[in-house]
Amino acid sequence: MSREIAAAPLTPEAFAPFGDVLDTSRGADFLINDGLCARHHDRARLDFGPPETGRPGLSLFDAEPRALPYRFDLVERHPLGSQAFVPMSRCSFLVLVAPDENGLPGRPRAFRSAPGQAVNLCRGTWHGVLTPLEAPGLFAVLDRVGAERNLEEYRYPAPWLVV
Amino acid sequence: MSREIAAAPLTPEAFAPFGDVLDTSRGADFLINDGLCARHHDRARLDFGPPETGRPGLSLFDAEPRALPYRFDLVERHPLGSQAFVPMSRCSFLVLVAPDENGLPGRPRAFRSAPGQAVNLCRGTWHGVLTPLEAPGLFAVLDRVGAERNLEEYRYPAPWLVV
Repeated sequence: MSREIAAAPLTPEAFAPFGDVLDTSRGADFLINDGLCARHHDRARLDFGPPETGRPGLSLFDAEPRALPYRFDLVERHPLGSQAFVPMSRCSFLVLVAPDENGLPGRPRAFRSAPGQAVNLCRGTWHGVLTPLEAPGLFAVLDRVGAERNLEEYRYPAPWLVV
Repeated sequence: MSREIAAAPLTPEAFAPFGDVLDTSRGADFLINDGLCARHHDRARLDFGPPETGRPGLSLFDAEPRALPYRFDLVERHPLGSQAFVPMSRCSFLVLVAPDENGLPGRPRAFRSAPGQAVNLCRGTWHGVLTPLEAPGLFAVLDRVGAERNLEEYRYPAPWLVV
């Protein structure tokens, strides 16, 4: 089995099994502010898990840019909540995800974002670490804040190469 | 009383009475992903109001850029929740806010963001509409989604001019 993965364009349809793509491609839901602002309303399946022990938090991630071809063997997931990544520049970034197969990640898939796209990973989705393809790699991240352990990691027996 | 308002630099300290500034100026809280990503953790006073009737939502706002001097007379507030604005480009934007004075907004204050800054308005804070100063004016917005009315508007008897 080839260890090479071609990075596909990030589209809401292709990404739907893993999460949400937030962009303006589907048109706005309504106009606000005297018609000067288009609102694309409520576009993410947010989930912050049990409210007794956690809550939504907004953080910044400042990540070093990577280049293609990109080699990785580590994926992770957050069993208690969704995680959204909003780039604060018009950078492109890789979104690496994998289907769950009986509790382990299957063959990964790679998506490459376009400027103006953000993503929200559904709760429990296997994914790679944040990998901007251009500087600056500054993102706002919306995920669960809580004391419980909310991270599972998995290292594949051999690395994958995203091209 | 002058109707002119000078736009001040957006700093976490000056903005604290109104909300949170999310930027990297205070340094990261910890490193993740083998040291390749700095996490500035949980930097916003998020509040989504009564959970029985509402929840957090992530939307996109695509707003027309404005120019200084900028004239306005309308402010609004959301009594049931906070509202965060994350620019998806390295644009600068105006943040117009006003203290509450017995249920009405007082004299407004104007802040001008730098590239790489996002803001979160605390629940109930009087503020102007989204006013990017450069194109594209695309923002991710995190606020309460629910059926209850969550908007109060106020029109000042005379306009203010931000310079």
